[in-house]
Amino acid sequence: MSDVRRRDGHRVTSYDVARLVGVSQSAVSRCFKPGASVSKKMRARVMKVADDLGYQPNAIARSLITRRSNMVAVVISQQTNLYYPEVLVQLSQRFSERGVRVLLFTLEHESDIDVLYNQIFQYQVDGVVEAARLSGEQIDLMEQRGIPFVFYNRSLKDRRVNAVCCDQIEGERWLVNRLVESGHETFGLISGPEDSSVSVERTQGALERLKELDVKSVTVVLGDYSYESGASGLLELKNKLGKLPDAVVCANDVMAIGCMDAARYRLGVKVPDELSVVGFDGVGPAQWQSYDLTTVRQPVRRMTEAAVSMILERVEEPELPPEKRTFSGILVDGGSARLA
Amino acid sequence: MSDVRRRDGHRVTSYDVARLVGVSQSAVSRCFKPGASVSKKMRARVMKVADDLGYQPNAIARSLITRRSNMVAVVISQQTNLYYPEVLVQLSQRFSERGVRVLLFTLEHESDIDVLYNQIFQYQVDGVVEAARLSGEQIDLMEQRGIPFVFYNRSLKDRRVNAVCCDQIEGERWLVNRLVESGHETFGLISGPEDSSVSVERTQGALERLKELDVKSVTVVLGDYSYESGASGLLELKNKLGKLPDAVVCANDVMAIGCMDAARYRLGVKVPDELSVVGFDGVGPAQWQSYDLTTVRQPVRRMTEAAVSMILERVEEPELPPEKRTFSGILVDGGSARLA
Repeated sequence: MSDVRRRDGHRVTSYDVARLVGVSQSAVSRCFKPGASVSKKMRARVMKVADDLGYQPNAIARSLITRRSNMVAVVISQQTNLYYPEVLVQLSQRFSERGVRVLLFTLEHESDIDVLYNQIFQYQVDGVVEAARLSGEQIDLMEQRGIPFVFYNRSLKDRRVNAVCCDQIEGERWLVNRLVESGHETFGLISGPEDSSVSVERTQGALERLKELDVKSVTVVLGDYSYESGASGLLELKNKLGKLPDAVVCANDVMAIGCMDAARYRLGVKVPDELSVVGFDGVGPAQWQSYDLTTVRQPVRRMTEAAVSMILERVEEPELPPEKRTFSGILVDGGSARLA
Repeated sequence: MSDVRRRDGHRVTSYDVARLVGVSQSAVSRCFKPGASVSKKMRARVMKVADDLGYQPNAIARSLITRRSNMVAVVISQQTNLYYPEVLVQLSQRFSERGVRVLLFTLEHESDIDVLYNQIFQYQVDGVVEAARLSGEQIDLMEQRGIPFVFYNRSLKDRRVNAVCCDQIEGERWLVNRLVESGHETFGLISGPEDSSVSVERTQGALERLKELDVKSVTVVLGDYSYESGASGLLELKNKLGKLPDAVVCANDVMAIGCMDAARYRLGVKVPDELSVVGFDGVGPAQWQSYDLTTVRQPVRRMTEAAVSMILERVEEPELPPEKRTFSGILVDGGSARLA
């Protein structure tokens, strides 16, 4: 930390700036507050003098008065999906437009989460965006402290919590519809990790629709969202069935990419001529020509905007009731599946 | 922000915890300080009572006393390389092992950088890891404030600054050596953006070595690190030369991937049989079987560890002289190039 001192040895304060500009101290404060009402001309004058004096408002000291730190914790888990970096960058930008900064918490092991919550409280963040798993006890603790939090792409059936989600079930139903109407009859599913609520919803969504459409041949194998598990998942499906299914529905894009590569380079099978593969997420590489995935793209921009608004509304009005916002995914007909 | 109040309406303090446990207030403080010397038993007793009372140390209030915020700013630019998310996660984890949290600053436009530095000062971070471009004036400003900073994969020739880099030039020389010794005679280069110091070093490194090895046919086109610019770069090379070169050297992996896809899917050319392609970075998708890139992998773990140590050493001892640490990349012989 640093500060700049006046020639007499005192720290330069907003009063020094105000005196030199000839305005009130609160006018100076407003100039440094993102989004505060102040004329361009006034801001320019104040900034010029502040710069000359080397004045900077002390956000930390101010937070002790306003009881806001203007920081929000974002918790992500180590199980890094290629998809999350985009979420993180978008969250950071949406928050910064509202004058709030992201304090980053990454979990290497799920057991880190207790230490982490201690720290979240210590840094006095205004809110938490939660893109990792949380136990019921941890939720209790957050509620007890009165810190607003929003789950990002996690939902908890029996808790009244704030959440922003992509509609996993709707997306999977659409994928299954497209494949069945295009003549696919036998299906393999590669799920994500068993403890991922997103994967459970996606896999259940696909299974349910397949059942409704009276598809008889459906085999599920377990993946872990990784490229490698998409590849080994395909080999496992082939072993179980004695042959390849018509289509493989993967619980995320990265596994679908691994599955396509295994089909082509390990089994010498043509995609989509001999095998259709679909994913979920809409990560950047899904659009690369080698893959051109049929997938459901999460509307990251809309979802992150929603998460940011929901947190900041609750920082202002802690009494707002919990809310869940579910966004439809964007349907992408790619070349990785034989579609009618 | 939240706190917990005692039955008499006062905020629970470390003194309340100390009294109940029967230890000093400073012993309680130590229990909450990452890395502080305290017995397991003591910590367990203190934590139990703190939990019962709902006590949490206020990191912000403490920072006003210790003059450390235990936060470090990490500045990344919007030009999101698939490679940076890994850097960010690794930095976050290395810092958190040292009791320090990452406050994230993402730049959407380069012009955001002035607003951003104002904010960095306001949040009173202990240091800055800089993975975006910075002008000479901005560096002056940081030095004036006495905030330690480390450039991550940026170097500035005529400034005494702290920097952690991968050896771009050495890596490119190795790539060129491998290609020339394997019989490649005509070369295309797809550079990164002109204002990227990393791209300039990579492209210069390759050009210099090609000259030393007396390679006559070398054509350079401009890219922007994106998949699309790798694809269009290949088409541009073909137009300029009237045919494809033997090898294309791309200033990063993502462009090399775009280049390979354009060769296969737009030109119907076999990689590596008819065209060798090499990249730089060692991003995850470079290892996918569709690409299997010959590349130079940056040692992200070592580089992020170095950046974290360099910052924290300078928070303790601001007088330490500037230091540059350059790490050799890891050479990856992949299937994207015909190598002897």
